[in-house]
Amino acid sequence: VTQDAFVLRLLDTPEVQRLRRIRALGPASLAFPGAEHSRFAHALGAAHVMSRYLGRVAELAQELPPCERIDEVTAKIALAAALLHDLGHGPYSHTFEEALIGARAHETWTSKIVLHPDTAVHRIVAELGSHAPKAVERLIRGEHPILHLARAVSGTFDVDRCDYLLRDSYQTGVRYGLLDLDWLFASLRLHVPRSGEPARLAVDGEKGLTAVEGFFLARLYMYRQVYLHKAVRAAECMIYALVRRLCALGPRPCTHPVMAKILRREAVSVDEYLLLDDSIFDGEISAYTCDADPILRELATGLRERRLFKTMALRPDVDLETVGDALRTALRQGGYDPEFMGSIDRVETAAFVEDDALCVLGANGRVQPLLAASPVLRGLSRERYVQVRAVFTASARPLVEDALREWT
Amino acid sequence: VTQDAFVLRLLDTPEVQRLRRIRALGPASLAFPGAEHSRFAHALGAAHVMSRYLGRVAELAQELPPCERIDEVTAKIALAAALLHDLGHGPYSHTFEEALIGARAHETWTSKIVLHPDTAVHRIVAELGSHAPKAVERLIRGEHPILHLARAVSGTFDVDRCDYLLRDSYQTGVRYGLLDLDWLFASLRLHVPRSGEPARLAVDGEKGLTAVEGFFLARLYMYRQVYLHKAVRAAECMIYALVRRLCALGPRPCTHPVMAKILRREAVSVDEYLLLDDSIFDGEISAYTCDADPILRELATGLRERRLFKTMALRPDVDLETVGDALRTALRQGGYDPEFMGSIDRVETAAFVEDDALCVLGANGRVQPLLAASPVLRGLSRERYVQVRAVFTASARPLVEDALREWT
Amino acid sequence: VTQDAFVLRLLDTPEVQRLRRIRALGPASLAFPGAEHSRFAHALGAAHVMSRYLGRVAELAQELPPCERIDEVTAKIALAAALLHDLGHGPYSHTFEEALIGARAHETWTSKIVLHPDTAVHRIVAELGSHAPKAVERLIRGEHPILHLARAVSGTFDVDRCDYLLRDSYQTGVRYGLLDLDWLFASLRLHVPRSGEPARLAVDGEKGLTAVEGFFLARLYMYRQVYLHKAVRAAECMIYALVRRLCALGPRPCTHPVMAKILRREAVSVDEYLLLDDSIFDGEISAYTCDADPILRELATGLRERRLFKTMALRPDVDLETVGDALRTALRQGGYDPEFMGSIDRVETAAFVEDDALCVLGANGRVQPLLAASPVLRGLSRERYVQVRAVFTASARPLVEDALREWT
Amino acid sequence: VTQDAFVLRLLDTPEVQRLRRIRALGPASLAFPGAEHSRFAHALGAAHVMSRYLGRVAELAQELPPCERIDEVTAKIALAAALLHDLGHGPYSHTFEEALIGARAHETWTSKIVLHPDTAVHRIVAELGSHAPKAVERLIRGEHPILHLARAVSGTFDVDRCDYLLRDSYQTGVRYGLLDLDWLFASLRLHVPRSGEPARLAVDGEKGLTAVEGFFLARLYMYRQVYLHKAVRAAECMIYALVRRLCALGPRPCTHPVMAKILRREAVSVDEYLLLDDSIFDGEISAYTCDADPILRELATGLRERRLFKTMALRPDVDLETVGDALRTALRQGGYDPEFMGSIDRVETAAFVEDDALCVLGANGRVQPLLAASPVLRGLSRERYVQVRAVFTASARPLVEDALREWT
Repeated sequence: VTQDAFVLRLLDTPEVQRLRRIRALGPASLAFPGAEHSRFAHALGAAHVMSRYLGRVAELAQELPPCERIDEVTAKIALAAALLHDLGHGPYSHTFEEALIGARAHETWTSKIVLHPDTAVHRIVAELGSHAPKAVERLIRGEHPILHLARAVSGTFDVDRCDYLLRDSYQTGVRYGLLDLDWLFASLRLHVPRSGEPARLAVDGEKGLTAVEGFFLARLYMYRQVYLHKAVRAAECMIYALVRRLCALGPRPCTHPVMAKILRREAVSVDEYLLLDDSIFDGEISAYTCDADPILRELATGLRERRLFKTMALRPDVDLETVGDALRTALRQGGYDPEFMGSIDRVETAAFVEDDALCVLGANGRVQPLLAASPVLRGLSRERYVQVRAVFTASARPLVEDALREWT
Repeated sequence: VTQDAFVLRLLDTPEVQRLRRIRALGPASLAFPGAEHSRFAHALGAAHVMSRYLGRVAELAQELPPCERIDEVTAKIALAAALLHDLGHGPYSHTFEEALIGARAHETWTSKIVLHPDTAVHRIVAELGSHAPKAVERLIRGEHPILHLARAVSGTFDVDRCDYLLRDSYQTGVRYGLLDLDWLFASLRLHVPRSGEPARLAVDGEKGLTAVEGFFLARLYMYRQVYLHKAVRAAECMIYALVRRLCALGPRPCTHPVMAKILRREAVSVDEYLLLDDSIFDGEISAYTCDADPILRELATGLRERRLFKTMALRPDVDLETVGDALRTALRQGGYDPEFMGSIDRVETAAFVEDDALCVLGANGRVQPLLAASPVLRGLSRERYVQVRAVFTASARPLVEDALREWT
Repeated sequence: VTQDAFVLRLLDTPEVQRLRRIRALGPASLAFPGAEHSRFAHALGAAHVMSRYLGRVAELAQELPPCERIDEVTAKIALAAALLHDLGHGPYSHTFEEALIGARAHETWTSKIVLHPDTAVHRIVAELGSHAPKAVERLIRGEHPILHLARAVSGTFDVDRCDYLLRDSYQTGVRYGLLDLDWLFASLRLHVPRSGEPARLAVDGEKGLTAVEGFFLARLYMYRQVYLHKAVRAAECMIYALVRRLCALGPRPCTHPVMAKILRREAVSVDEYLLLDDSIFDGEISAYTCDADPILRELATGLRERRLFKTMALRPDVDLETVGDALRTALRQGGYDPEFMGSIDRVETAAFVEDDALCVLGANGRVQPLLAASPVLRGLSRERYVQVRAVFTASARPLVEDALREWT
Repeated sequence: VTQDAFVLRLLDTPEVQRLRRIRALGPASLAFPGAEHSRFAHALGAAHVMSRYLGRVAELAQELPPCERIDEVTAKIALAAALLHDLGHGPYSHTFEEALIGARAHETWTSKIVLHPDTAVHRIVAELGSHAPKAVERLIRGEHPILHLARAVSGTFDVDRCDYLLRDSYQTGVRYGLLDLDWLFASLRLHVPRSGEPARLAVDGEKGLTAVEGFFLARLYMYRQVYLHKAVRAAECMIYALVRRLCALGPRPCTHPVMAKILRREAVSVDEYLLLDDSIFDGEISAYTCDADPILRELATGLRERRLFKTMALRPDVDLETVGDALRTALRQGGYDPEFMGSIDRVETAAFVEDDALCVLGANGRVQPLLAASPVLRGLSRERYVQVRAVFTASARPLVEDALREWT
């Protein structure tokens, strides 16, 4: 079968189709109404970017030692890795996973699903050879004998990020920092050191530097404008609080049995896990709006009818414990449960962290690290984006603003 | 309150927020992975287009007799009508409604929700005056003392269509026939006949004709490429079959109680109806994949895992009864239940039907009907887009192709 | 040499570089300030579209009989034809050529330049073989043993039009009717009749019909909005009048010697012709603004300072002689020279004329003519775009409007 | 007259129409074939951005003390300043001006043209009041009693730059760093200090920071990719050399009389200066291709037929005198005139230089300097873009590369 036919067969499996029912950006559509796209669209996009990567590497193959060229089976493993890398996501993508401290990360579930002999994706991948499912699983984790391929699947600059930055920008309408995929691939090179070390991803210094900077700027802007937007974080904090409350109360009658197991920290099988999706969680939130517990009820109703917690920006360097105490005291004075009706939310991202995955090839064959070649990235590497916010139920606003004023 | 604040209050009601859980294009994302947007985004967009319409009418107000100008209360009624016009949609938008022959149309439910004294949208609209909910409901149905406003809400050329054509094009990536809203509004005029008849929407002949043609071409192309795409129609036919099967079997244990009532043709209250959304229906389809009935099971599994019915294009002028008989005979011969495993699907849309809602103003003040001014629309008005397809379970393909060959 | 290197060598010839000094749309930038692009950019674009065409034909080569496949030399001849097809344009592209009744058409000059042994383009093309210049020249005129290639260079649907419709749309900002080149090439096919007749261009009926319709709609809209825009036509009519006046007066002292020869209908060599470009004509117009002849002075000053003739739309079916007489009488009454201060301008274009260059391939292998497959083109084929305008010096407006009112 | 009518009258003056004959980016179209747009399109665009600025300031007017609001006459002066700011450009925009060391800068000529009582623009502006021409001229130089308006016309962040960054990006196809004008204006504020100091331009910190960063990134990228592109700089160095050669030789017979005066450093009147445009200079270059002087001939032919000098990138920190000597020695050895056949080209631009023209308004009313609020700009402010290149006639490449290798 051709590469296209192979991807199509994987697409029409229950495990991949399930991603249609998981929104890529969790609750972000509460702030960006267009951001309703699913993990399925992203998985398809990541496979598309991978297929362009494979095409580019094929053009450059003669520069590579034979052991670093990509044969047909490896190409299919690479496409499978790109397509399947998010299989393990649960409801609301990252949000749910972060809500349940101690829960298995989605990466672990991805591994389990790919390796489980009864899943459809496993069966189709195994037709490439009995080693293939393990190879796909390892590649998803960034491990592969061909280093440049490993980094293209999971690195600072990989097919996953290329797709989601473009896709999330398109869907949210946040247009700053568009990255130009055509230009990026046109300037992509492979650097083969004379030392016999493995080939590394590189960009042509004349053409490609701006494309790479565009990638990292796009990432910074999407974090700042979208992923860490105050209303998005407020909704996520409400989901965290709701899950904490559920853990405290124990599963409710209407809690889905698999969800109940997860809340009770019981083991969950791959089959069971695959039953979960956004619609399960949406259904539960709907049911909790009539729950006997007033806190669960309030959180569920707020999420369902978009009455979100309010936020208050604090100085990035505040002592989290001190302001946390002040917030809890204020909430308690107002008669709110400080465990569930507010929290301090600190988020941090580095705009650019150098690694050796990508280098720059000058016109004269000189190889430079990215930082040495790019003033823009040098600038970004010295900065972190840190945001500290108090997040709390709307009616507590006057109280909280009074109590935390000194830290703004 | 300002118009913006009024719209925001309506947005944050449970009835409008519910639209977040109803995909605008039903199962179209099975063919166009990007088409996962909800009715909520569309409602917001329609309100935005209305607010631009109101802005344009305000610019033209001095040309209008006072009784056709739009005062502040009427403006809010118009915004509410645009925002709320789709409130009555059930799961999978049009699909579900068409599946249930005899069910109430979504327009009826929209009316009920707006008029029901206990809904949040009713309460907020009623603050404009006790007549306001009725005025909004009538305007949604295209009735209003100010004719041009009535047509802008519900006509061949209305704010609803302007938003969904643009939005569906953006989300599906089908770029043919983009309409240019800025140019359209810049060339929008109001024609006030000397006869004392009410003012009508018009476009400036020099600038606007191309914009209006672009609107109708966009509509034709979206129908041809997206709304009536063979995979989209196949999925819809499967949903129709599944609902027919459910009606035949009676509700299953896992059928949602409100859905069960609808299937049994029992009366459903507004409160009950509002519980329905895509996640309810998705959850049921998931449950039916394990149902005891093999037909229900097969249909549900096919929808969930995207194993869609196949299609076979037939000549537009075939006799539907004749080919229907031939299809049923072929299915029966193959051991398939002809009631549920296939059907003849005929869809038809007129590219352009003239009405008097819109006319063209020449440079010299001459008024022309659209058809007289536009060769392109004259061309379109003579043509209909008709598509007849046999739609049937995949394994029956050889049988069906043999049986229906003569009608291709 | 590779195809790219061959194109680059042709680019850096004096004959091709000269096209940088000839605006593609003549005086259209007087109405659309962005439309200042040159024939050079268009030539480069046409070569790019040709190289995509060659790539697509290579993908489809196995469907073709060997004699209709494109070998390396033929590919370079095709690229040269696309790149060089406009070499013969004189100042202001079409405008100047149309101004001089009886002058040689630019196509004739293109042939002469390609065939002339002393031009750089001739020398470079001749390196492909001594037959090559003649082959390029014939291909530019639409003649080639491989029919589909001949039509791709010069047909209703050719690389020239693909480039200029996209380019002119981009530069003018007139966005209606964008055609989608990627989609067009993806749906391009070659139809090889069983009869042994030559292969023809075709589009895939499922995907490609809309793309082809988009092409013809784009063409219609560009004519209506840009090429035949009233201010563009007014400027062209002024240039025609200026050239008529020059012919009547004979060349002026400041007239460029080659231009003087052309005005006197003397023979002009290829070398001489290649000296002409927009800057020569701009320089002359500048000089004529101080000429002793008041009519030449007025026309030149009007063009240079953008004081254009006014236009008045007339009914498409007026008798040209009758309104021409009326216009001349009115101008004479006002003391204007009727030969130079106004004219009746009738332009006409067919939105779609069927030929057999392009057909539609149905899913079932059925071949259809475009008209049978496309309701939109059927509509367009019944209509012509005709525009009749009186065009006259601004100060004569009241007089002319009075005199011609009955024909509006 | 309305603002629009006022702008239209200014547009149709000989001085503004002359800008149609001056390419905005000089010889950049030799490297970017789309970059053929004129100063006229830019002037129109700058006036458009100004009219949006005035609209935004009108929305914010109630926050301003009366003396800083913009009345109707001031608005027209501002529009005139934006439209006329580039009137003084000579052939090839900046290039020609930089070629002639000691020549008057275009800004000086702009002032003279606006202030000269016989120009059409002067007459039209003077209808606003006898002080108006002087006010326009001062505003173009960044001087006006209303500080925020002065900075909007001439500052680090002004209407001129907004237009040319967007326009040059559109025309060259270099899409990195598009700035979003709608978003920029939506987030534009005016900061009125309590101290009584004048109001300053500001952006909303929540929304606007990214828009402002986008502006400065766009600027950096356009410099790096376009304005300082190696082929563009090579062409500019050739023009500098050609002008130096002309000065050394004295005007040639075919040199335009005004150009001859300039070369001889004789005084030139406003009327004479306005005769110059690209077509004059193009005509001269054409004539110089047949000049008796071999150096002038070679430079002119190279420019006309695009046989550009080659470039060789050197380390940014080389000592210019040392490498200049080495280059001249190498050229002399090869028999080339070192004065005209090569040079060292050092260009430098700061990515961001802080000034106080623009500040950031936080949600809580806090005012911050841009640098304090933006990690990206903080990064950029620490870096300069410096490029040192040897630029030399193509045939000298082996010699020069040998001689300068140690400085790469």
